[in-house]
Amino acid sequence: MRERDMQPDHLVTVADFQEASRHAISEPAWDYITGGSGDEITVRANTSVFEERRILPRMLRETSSIDTRTTILGAESGKPFAIAPMALQRLFHPEGEIATARAAARNDIPFSLATLSSIEMAKVVEHGGQFFFQLYWLRDRGLMAEMLAGAETFGCRAVILTVDAPPLGHRLRDVRNGFRLPDDVYPANIVSEDDEAAESLRDSVDLTFDTSLNWDDLEWIKEHCSLPLVIKGLLHPDDARAAVEHGADGIVVSNHGGRQLDQAVTSLEVLPLIREAVGPDLELVLDSGVRSGRDVLLALARGADSVFIGRPALWGLAVAGADGVSQVLGILEAELLDAMSLSGTRTIAEAKELAVW
Amino acid sequence: MRERDMQPDHLVTVADFQEASRHAISEPAWDYITGGSGDEITVRANTSVFEERRILPRMLRETSSIDTRTTILGAESGKPFAIAPMALQRLFHPEGEIATARAAARNDIPFSLATLSSIEMAKVVEHGGQFFFQLYWLRDRGLMAEMLAGAETFGCRAVILTVDAPPLGHRLRDVRNGFRLPDDVYPANIVSEDDEAAESLRDSVDLTFDTSLNWDDLEWIKEHCSLPLVIKGLLHPDDARAAVEHGADGIVVSNHGGRQLDQAVTSLEVLPLIREAVGPDLELVLDSGVRSGRDVLLALARGADSVFIGRPALWGLAVAGADGVSQVLGILEAELLDAMSLSGTRTIAEAKELAVW
Amino acid sequence: MRERDMQPDHLVTVADFQEASRHAISEPAWDYITGGSGDEITVRANTSVFEERRILPRMLRETSSIDTRTTILGAESGKPFAIAPMALQRLFHPEGEIATARAAARNDIPFSLATLSSIEMAKVVEHGGQFFFQLYWLRDRGLMAEMLAGAETFGCRAVILTVDAPPLGHRLRDVRNGFRLPDDVYPANIVSEDDEAAESLRDSVDLTFDTSLNWDDLEWIKEHCSLPLVIKGLLHPDDARAAVEHGADGIVVSNHGGRQLDQAVTSLEVLPLIREAVGPDLELVLDSGVRSGRDVLLALARGADSVFIGRPALWGLAVAGADGVSQVLGILEAELLDAMSLSGTRTIAEAKELAVW
Amino acid sequence: MRERDMQPDHLVTVADFQEASRHAISEPAWDYITGGSGDEITVRANTSVFEERRILPRMLRETSSIDTRTTILGAESGKPFAIAPMALQRLFHPEGEIATARAAARNDIPFSLATLSSIEMAKVVEHGGQFFFQLYWLRDRGLMAEMLAGAETFGCRAVILTVDAPPLGHRLRDVRNGFRLPDDVYPANIVSEDDEAAESLRDSVDLTFDTSLNWDDLEWIKEHCSLPLVIKGLLHPDDARAAVEHGADGIVVSNHGGRQLDQAVTSLEVLPLIREAVGPDLELVLDSGVRSGRDVLLALARGADSVFIGRPALWGLAVAGADGVSQVLGILEAELLDAMSLSGTRTIAEAKELAVW
Ligand SMILES: Cc1cc2nc3c(=O)[nH]c(=O)nc-3n(C[C@H](O)[C@H](O)[C@H](O)COP(=O)(O)O)c2cc1C
Ligand SMILES: Cc1cc2nc3c(=O)[nH]c(=O)nc-3n(C[C@H](O)[C@H](O)[C@H](O)COP(=O)(O)O)c2cc1C
Ligand SMILES: Cc1cc2nc3c(=O)[nH]c(=O)nc-3n(C[C@H](O)[C@H](O)[C@H](O)COP(=O)(O)O)c2cc1C
Ligand SMILES: Cc1cc2nc3c(=O)[nH]c(=O)nc-3n(C[C@H](O)[C@H](O)[C@H](O)COP(=O)(O)O)c2cc1C
Repeated sequence: MRERDMQPDHLVTVADFQEASRHAISEPAWDYITGGSGDEITVRANTSVFEERRILPRMLRETSSIDTRTTILGAESGKPFAIAPMALQRLFHPEGEIATARAAARNDIPFSLATLSSIEMAKVVEHGGQFFFQLYWLRDRGLMAEMLAGAETFGCRAVILTVDAPPLGHRLRDVRNGFRLPDDVYPANIVSEDDEAAESLRDSVDLTFDTSLNWDDLEWIKEHCSLPLVIKGLLHPDDARAAVEHGADGIVVSNHGGRQLDQAVTSLEVLPLIREAVGPDLELVLDSGVRSGRDVLLALARGADSVFIGRPALWGLAVAGADGVSQVLGILEAELLDAMSLSGTRTIAEAKELAVW
Repeated sequence: MRERDMQPDHLVTVADFQEASRHAISEPAWDYITGGSGDEITVRANTSVFEERRILPRMLRETSSIDTRTTILGAESGKPFAIAPMALQRLFHPEGEIATARAAARNDIPFSLATLSSIEMAKVVEHGGQFFFQLYWLRDRGLMAEMLAGAETFGCRAVILTVDAPPLGHRLRDVRNGFRLPDDVYPANIVSEDDEAAESLRDSVDLTFDTSLNWDDLEWIKEHCSLPLVIKGLLHPDDARAAVEHGADGIVVSNHGGRQLDQAVTSLEVLPLIREAVGPDLELVLDSGVRSGRDVLLALARGADSVFIGRPALWGLAVAGADGVSQVLGILEAELLDAMSLSGTRTIAEAKELAVW
Repeated sequence: MRERDMQPDHLVTVADFQEASRHAISEPAWDYITGGSGDEITVRANTSVFEERRILPRMLRETSSIDTRTTILGAESGKPFAIAPMALQRLFHPEGEIATARAAARNDIPFSLATLSSIEMAKVVEHGGQFFFQLYWLRDRGLMAEMLAGAETFGCRAVILTVDAPPLGHRLRDVRNGFRLPDDVYPANIVSEDDEAAESLRDSVDLTFDTSLNWDDLEWIKEHCSLPLVIKGLLHPDDARAAVEHGADGIVVSNHGGRQLDQAVTSLEVLPLIREAVGPDLELVLDSGVRSGRDVLLALARGADSVFIGRPALWGLAVAGADGVSQVLGILEAELLDAMSLSGTRTIAEAKELAVW
Repeated sequence: MRERDMQPDHLVTVADFQEASRHAISEPAWDYITGGSGDEITVRANTSVFEERRILPRMLRETSSIDTRTTILGAESGKPFAIAPMALQRLFHPEGEIATARAAARNDIPFSLATLSSIEMAKVVEHGGQFFFQLYWLRDRGLMAEMLAGAETFGCRAVILTVDAPPLGHRLRDVRNGFRLPDDVYPANIVSEDDEAAESLRDSVDLTFDTSLNWDDLEWIKEHCSLPLVIKGLLHPDDARAAVEHGADGIVVSNHGGRQLDQAVTSLEVLPLIREAVGPDLELVLDSGVRSGRDVLLALARGADSVFIGRPALWGLAVAGADGVSQVLGILEAELLDAMSLSGTRTIAEAKELAVW
């Protein structure tokens, strides 16, 4: 890559932002975003499965106007993608979640508030936009009930229960880097600034989270919160079926970006099996590996209703705060529009009919 | 590659010309020829799908004389290939389209006049040869009618309507290079020398072209021109079927050399499905990725009647004008003759019967 | 890999130990552990077949406690893996088999005593633990009978008859290195310190071993030893069937770590065919290529009851004796626990039900 | 590769000889042996198809004695391989064909006398051994009749008619190297020392050979020669069937080592189809890509009765004349014996029953 490509106006792909962010933050922080668990087999597979797919475009379809509007888990969205729940964003930029959420709002897409947000939920929602609340199953039921109440109060559209963690995956880059949270970055929804920090993120998660989570616990959430309940982190068709049976309102098909079980199957591969298992009506969001507007289109064509964007947003955040996130989202949108018009796909509905090789 | 391989008499493959042309023109111009859209996944796939195929040659077939004569879209041709429509060839050599067309005539194959030719159609045809006229769907119907009338007058054998553009694919090399047309290179069939240039090729295309093109518009062309009508840029078997239904006289199965939708399927992969969709009689031309005489043979064996040669001709043009194009065409012919005699294939008809792994 | 990764507390994967051991022992000794026969096609395939597999994890399964206890060939084991029989371990560390056996005991897994042990069986078992005895078919029946009697006396749980050698595979690294045993390392169960050494390991094996081994010989072993009899080195389903018919109590599906027939199929690939051939009840151990806890899980999911760990233990031994082996076993255990809880697999029985792509 | 590996006693694989021969003869001569036609896609595929296969060895089969004896095209042979017909061997060593033939005899395998031998047939056979005579279809019928008579007189076991040439494949290395025969190397069966040399090997072949060869011409050969007639160079099952119908006594399944049609299918891939086409009885020899004793075994397991060794013999010849060839043949034999005993394969008949993945 040439020198000038590293200047903001030469960042024309998500890969450019990935590369540029390397120089914007410390190596351990960059590794924390970019890496995954184990040998990162799933991390690599997540992107290569997208690259291996081929589209059979349709022609002569009058594509003067493309409409990307849709709803995602009950939220209106200008595009079929939203920001994935991601912890501790002040690690990557002083404005953290607020910057990312503002970019989301500016680009007319929803933002996912994470249990492990480094800025309190209440402060993030102040800046406007559409929100989901991502819940981790905590030992402290009171705290969970409080957060769920907050989510309702703050107008979140859905609760997304992440079920593929804890425990946290074994992320070797973090181990090798001796990666630890700086004193001023902490899960603000859970602890206050003065709490003593745990030995490592993994330890702290082990202390706070409850690994006894099972299907029956969904009932408890429904009792404490009237928002639609979405399960994030399913990959097995039988689990997808169980989600339907237990009254889930949607599923995020996800391997957590390759950060949990290494050698987990990729979302894109299992997606059609999951769509088949749940039938045409249940809402399916895909994440893990989406790096371009084409990838968004491919996910829709394979059975998703929309996708979550993970790392690309954080690379943008690291490079230039809200503006960086916004540029990344702009790239994804432009690429999606391009791919839709070049494949004769005028609406999200048509995107779902697209033939993929 | 050794030093001397870069000298004209050591250019023995199309790849040699690709490499040599790198030193003959500016890097942005070379990138404009060689590159494609997005991550160039389709660009790479276009050549690798040819390389992965294997031929089951036939032996003991008396190959003393090989006959490569055929017709392509109504034109007589000494070989089963013709020059693809390619815009703005004065970017690569001062004699531009005239040089390429003369080389085509000299090698007894047809040349495709492009809507975006950098030399007016009238001036190109003066030098003799057989021609097709490639049409882009323009906002200005009067201009289109004029061009179609010209195509008829100048004895073109067919009108080739390109349907996989606009909009232009997002070509990142051009974006990174800040690629712009020099003042003296412009689409001579459309604008005159004094017109003010648009910001970029992409912008100018967006201004001039009409993205509302659909199947019904074929009728308008047929009304304004009695030449056979060929559709260029189809990849989906259903679109091929629609082309037949709407009275098309032929199809160019093409992904525009990977310059439009990135991750579009390759022509060679879908070809058998398209042949099956349209039946044995409709004329099919393949392009995108043909780099050797063997590739020509493979395309015929998989269901094409002939192929279009794109970039190889331009690399030849850049290296040595008409002579360079002629050498490239000579290489393709020699390789085709070789492959035909070594596989026991004496005629184009036998080539279509060849078994491919 | 960064400098400090080479320090014991930065060795966090088996690959780290492989790399670190390179600096701990002589190159020929390291090559002897690490290499295989011929072009090492099977050596490479052994690890790549594991990397290519994908797991479909199950969620919401309440994984607070994971139980890895199982039995392996009649021995109680804290984890579903044991140390494979490996010859001449004093080549890699002065404490040789004693160090490895002690680490096994400390980690609550069984250890396989090899016919070609560089420390007499009697001395190894002194240090406690659970043992198998691995038998090579020797020309000297008296010596074999003695060793079998010893195995019984010392409380071994099973006799493992290795049938994929002799002759030894042609290991080109050893040939190129002119690898020879140092004077003080010799097969202590077979020769005494003062015996004259053979020209090479291969020659000595050819002298000592009997290649006339066939199915009928199993009878002889059963007559001389009441321990369960396990066949190590089968890869063909018909051989697995024959093993059952000849009364084998278990099979180690193994290609000897790619050290015998190069281009032999991998254990992981044939495993399901072998399971199908022998039915659900016969105990199957897999070895060859296991490098992580995930690999252990994959082997169980594909039909194994447990696995043998080969080279990883020796790399650990080379780096830091019993402690090194112990660290390697600790890594495997931690990775297995991780993979089990992240895939919703709470017991060895559930591991065997895991869906693999 | 380390320094000393280049010394004769460190050449332990065919690849070692390939590498060592690079330094023993001129680069153009080495390229002439090693290269192939076009982009050498078939050259590379020829070896990779062998590397990708996996063997399912059989165990407990009593392999104390392995018998590799067999017959090849009517000749007794100590091993299931023979030397392929290869032109002009004095290019690589002053003793040329005589050296190679002597090494073959010394190793108890047959040698193929080539039409284009650089030493007259009569002089080669003087040194003893078993021979085949390879025939190219020449314009000069009188000369062919003479050579066939000679083959009979000299006790050749079979006539091998090569049908995949002429014309010669387009070998780009030779073109780039401007490769030409030195004055003292010429096809001694065809021209005498004083004949004026043609411009290039390809030209001379074009002048001498007759491309009108077809199935009916087999009759002429049978009339002029009572030896068994074998067809070399078939790859299509229909051609194999035709060979049977026209009374061929055997087939050499071959793509001429990737020197004729580039992108021709590999012999190993089509072999089972050809075996199926001709039934169990017709003798099939395979060549193209055999580089180890394992490859010999794989070819037998896939349906061949024996194989021809091409380039490996010439690399040996270039390194050390008859001794070099002999060493190469010794390596192949040792590897074959190894692979047979490690896979429980005691005879050529059992080798043909071996299961391959
Ligand atoms: C730095 C980082 C932190 C994350 N934190 C959370 C989290 O707290 N909760 C959660 O459900 N997922 C979390 N994820 C996973 C994302 O929600 C999402 O599943 C994943 O990033 C998608 O893959 P991608 O990064 O390849 O797009 C995190 C991901 C990253 C990269
Ligand atoms: C520089 C360049 C300009 C092109 N311009 C046009 C054009 O104006 N109209 C058109 O239909 N196709 C155009 N094409 C696409 C070609 O007609 C053809 O589809 C493509 O080049 C075939 O792929 P290949 O280059 O791999 O042979 C252009 C291609 C190139 C390389
Ligand atoms: C240095 C070394 C020595 C070995 N010696 C023996 C042996 O004496 N007997 C035996 O049955 N297997 C022996 N093996 C094979 C192992 O038991 C086991 O099958 C193999 O190492 C498993 O593959 P892995 O190393 O990839 O885990 C040996 C392996 C190695 C690496
Ligand atoms: C230098 C060279 C010369 C050859 N000359 C002939 C020949 O004169 N006649 C023939 O039938 N095959 C000829 N061959 C092809 C061989 O007989 C054989 O088919 C081929 O080498 C087998 O492939 P391999 O080299 O990969 O083993 C030649 C091959 C080489 C490498």
